[in-house]
Amino acid sequence: MFVPAIKGQGTEEQQKKWLPLAYKFQIIGCYAQTELGHGSNVQGLETTATFDPMTDEFVIHSPTLTSSKWWPGGLGKASTHAVVYARLITEGKDYGIHGFIVQLRSLEDHSPLPGVTLGDIGGKFGSGAYNSMDNGVLRFDHVRIPRDQMLMRLSQVTREGKYVQSDVPKQLLYGTMVYVRQSIVADASKALSRAVCIAVRYSAIRKQFGSQDGGPETQVLNYRTQQSRLFPLLASAYAFRFVGDWLNWLYTDVTQKLEVKDYSTLQEAHACTAGLKAVTTSATADAIEECRKLCGGHGYLNSSGLPELFAVYVPACTYEGDNVVLLLQVARILMKTVSQLTSGKQPVGTMAYMGKVQHLMQSKCAVKTAEDWLNPAFIQEAFEARALRMAVNCAQNIGQASNQEEGFYERSPDLLEAAVAHIQLIIVTKFIEKVHQDIPGHGVKEQLQNLCNVYALYTLHKHLGDFLATGSLTPKQGALANEQLGKLYAQVRPNAVALVDAFNYTDHYLGSVLGRYDGNVYPALYEEAWKDPLNETVVPEGYHEYLRPLLKQQLKLSRL
Amino acid sequence: MFVPAIKGQGTEEQQKKWLPLAYKFQIIGCYAQTELGHGSNVQGLETTATFDPMTDEFVIHSPTLTSSKWWPGGLGKASTHAVVYARLITEGKDYGIHGFIVQLRSLEDHSPLPGVTLGDIGGKFGSGAYNSMDNGVLRFDHVRIPRDQMLMRLSQVTREGKYVQSDVPKQLLYGTMVYVRQSIVADASKALSRAVCIAVRYSAIRKQFGSQDGGPETQVLNYRTQQSRLFPLLASAYAFRFVGDWLNWLYTDVTQKLEVKDYSTLQEAHACTAGLKAVTTSATADAIEECRKLCGGHGYLNSSGLPELFAVYVPACTYEGDNVVLLLQVARILMKTVSQLTSGKQPVGTMAYMGKVQHLMQSKCAVKTAEDWLNPAFIQEAFEARALRMAVNCAQNIGQASNQEEGFYERSPDLLEAAVAHIQLIIVTKFIEKVHQDIPGHGVKEQLQNLCNVYALYTLHKHLGDFLATGSLTPKQGALANEQLGKLYAQVRPNAVALVDAFNYTDHYLGSVLGRYDGNVYPALYEEAWKDPLNETVVPEGYHEYLRPLLKQQLKLSRL
Repeated sequence: MFVPAIKGQGTEEQQKKWLPLAYKFQIIGCYAQTELGHGSNVQGLETTATFDPMTDEFVIHSPTLTSSKWWPGGLGKASTHAVVYARLITEGKDYGIHGFIVQLRSLEDHSPLPGVTLGDIGGKFGSGAYNSMDNGVLRFDHVRIPRDQMLMRLSQVTREGKYVQSDVPKQLLYGTMVYVRQSIVADASKALSRAVCIAVRYSAIRKQFGSQDGGPETQVLNYRTQQSRLFPLLASAYAFRFVGDWLNWLYTDVTQKLEVKDYSTLQEAHACTAGLKAVTTSATADAIEECRKLCGGHGYLNSSGLPELFAVYVPACTYEGDNVVLLLQVARILMKTVSQLTSGKQPVGTMAYMGKVQHLMQSKCAVKTAEDWLNPAFIQEAFEARALRMAVNCAQNIGQASNQEEGFYERSPDLLEAAVAHIQLIIVTKFIEKVHQDIPGHGVKEQLQNLCNVYALYTLHKHLGDFLATGSLTPKQGALANEQLGKLYAQVRPNAVALVDAFNYTDHYLGSVLGRYDGNVYPALYEEAWKDPLNETVVPEGYHEYLRPLLKQQLKLSRL
Repeated sequence: MFVPAIKGQGTEEQQKKWLPLAYKFQIIGCYAQTELGHGSNVQGLETTATFDPMTDEFVIHSPTLTSSKWWPGGLGKASTHAVVYARLITEGKDYGIHGFIVQLRSLEDHSPLPGVTLGDIGGKFGSGAYNSMDNGVLRFDHVRIPRDQMLMRLSQVTREGKYVQSDVPKQLLYGTMVYVRQSIVADASKALSRAVCIAVRYSAIRKQFGSQDGGPETQVLNYRTQQSRLFPLLASAYAFRFVGDWLNWLYTDVTQKLEVKDYSTLQEAHACTAGLKAVTTSATADAIEECRKLCGGHGYLNSSGLPELFAVYVPACTYEGDNVVLLLQVARILMKTVSQLTSGKQPVGTMAYMGKVQHLMQSKCAVKTAEDWLNPAFIQEAFEARALRMAVNCAQNIGQASNQEEGFYERSPDLLEAAVAHIQLIIVTKFIEKVHQDIPGHGVKEQLQNLCNVYALYTLHKHLGDFLATGSLTPKQGALANEQLGKLYAQVRPNAVALVDAFNYTDHYLGSVLGRYDGNVYPALYEEAWKDPLNETVVPEGYHEYLRPLLKQQLKLSRL
């Protein structure tokens, strides 16, 4: 994030000077934004960068304990430089948060420079995961940097200390945000598909119950309960892959439009990337843990690969925008869009469906049989009606409040649900669009169609309350969707292993004895156990000191 | 579990001989049931105990790799003895799983006895958690034990090798199971209340956004989104506490009845403890992780106490009966109860409500205003109608299948949902009964009443699809419940910190810098970070070896 920050906010000169240093590892840079006291609320950061016109320098300072930079990756031990976000103060006025390139450590002996306090913030979730990352703490005691180390693409401070906005549009920054978040959505699919690959393969090997007359037991993958928990996650892995691919396209589209100063789709693109980041990361974190549970006790072993995958993945729900904060941003844009519907302003992109408000508020789902749910048009309209009605319902409730802001606050739990409904519609839509395209490979399209339907009908079943409460479906139609879902599980079953093999992960990459391609799970589990350092001795260290005295009753008893 | 096994299945003589050895730490015993290949399906265990009448001994043997004992706690390094569950074979016949006391290690030098292979099964989830427990692997190569080390309370093998059932009723074993599971429910409340205590206290300290004109920011506990995620968990901690207390009473009741050979409530007691174990442990594991997320980035630090709490707690979803397997057992008993309703057999205990089938299948919820939802009778009936209708619906669907077992299998995902609905009804009922009692302390009853309503209405909102699909509520009534829920959050807010202080946990027990009683979070976080061993040096180990050559471009490049 050091490099993208300089790319996005540095002048051409700054880019020319600093990027080669970073690329060639002549400096190690990190991105120092989050503080002990402020994460989501970037505008509340407390670090100050006060311009001193006498020396043409900025004075970087941590005025409070809570202004300590906290969490930046690579900060604690490795970084020599950082892009530090601080409140720019010049001529006695606070101009808010700006970025500054600050050297932290000597390039000769790596010791922290005068006025710089650096350290690691301590152990984190999991046995590995982010414990190999020196997430750091950083404090400044009046550290001076040259004026030209303020990133000056968007605004400058002159030699005299005047604050000047450049004519570079601020909206350009959104491009970086869309880029980062689309990569997070792509990563969600990767992490989820790893977990699903492990759980599906192991579920095909693991047998339990169902033996009759001494015959073989049933593969746990054949149990409907296992399928109903696992196949929706398999479908989600594919769903997130396709929506991620589409987001990648969206990033290019937004970037091209920004270059010609077309900001017409920016807000919608921001809402949809923020929302997709939130929904896919939360779903993926939950799904990895569910996959672990689906592997039973053995999933709790590190050798299953799943505890580590979870511990590494789960911060994605919090970093780059806490998921709840992001969903509220989506909700705000939804409410704005709803309020503009009557003024005739047509919503664009993933919000275009809201333009059909007249139809969607009154439409009746036409599903009459379970098989009808295989028709993507019915699925699409049900999801559109649910999302739009929830948004309109929120807008009406907020409208009844005496104060709009107060109304938004009171209804924020409902707004989260409306935002999720809107984002799930996007995921379903992009999946449907994908399977509508030409897909090479015999029978592949049919399998993807099944997964698309599983994703949609599972989501519908899980959120049935939304669909029924908004009158988007009748209870009978909800039951038919659930019935069809059961049939789809039966169709996915024969291809489940092939559908995870298709991710094409090596055993080395998966890092899981349960998810081995050859299915040779038990010998691998057994063999892995013996690698535990505890097994280097047969009689454990500490036997003579602790265990033997206990067993031989030679422990000294208290005389009190 | 070594001691309870001997208590439950050992003869009086065996208890007299072995229990003092275990109590006085002259031997260390563990409970060796689970194998590499079999967990939930105990009847599928493969270890054999073959009686040899020539020597009056059992030969304990692991015939396959998958028959290796795997997971028993304390087995790998510490235990000298184990109660080993194995297939009893005598006179050429397999009599199924029985318990045997087997010495594993020498009492002189702790080395494994001949034919015994012992080891630790490797690293587990989390950085601490169960990594301090030597969960072990154990294999037997024809290990001989005296006949009198078979636990012979319920059945015996005679000197001649005859298998004989004793007249002690097998149902007595259920008593132990009810005991263990009720303690798991009590533990769920403890773990959940710890997590909630941390998250509530920190949410009162953490401020973010909402600053106007430089004033203080808003405590995150004041956000409705935070409240709507956190207060239901606070309410759940209380709910599980009360249902746990009640289960404790149930255990006594069942034990007393068993002693006079009254088995009339046994099945119902089994269903309700199994189901409560499943529902409370799953909810608690999810809730701890949610509390961690509610603490934002800092929740990911080990110093928050939450990663460790999660990693220690989450195996409860799997051990002592995988939660899905347990819920299917509940569902089976529900289906049996439904099928007996027409025959006039009156269901007992927590299933008694099913006797009101005529009324509950047709009743209409009378709620007309949001405040109506404060009436426990309306809540109770809504939950009863939902649970019963879901069970009856499943029974009808299974009834349409040509084969009952096949129908149960096909409908098992629905059966899980029906079982959860039944168990949630029990939790709601016991909470309502609790707040109906005399409760000392000024205003305490009112607070508990609020939490009871939060638990019920939150559960209702989360599972709204069930209530609407079964026609137990109208969409309007669902919306009123949600409206009332928002009002309840506002009422809980002023007392939220007091309601977690009431758990009376010391800072030492909580082990969380975020959950400190004095709220002095930031200095504690900061101070804790410096204890990280990485911070013992300012310039990290490895700088000269790795970082400096990189920064100085002295790395040798490949010549390929």
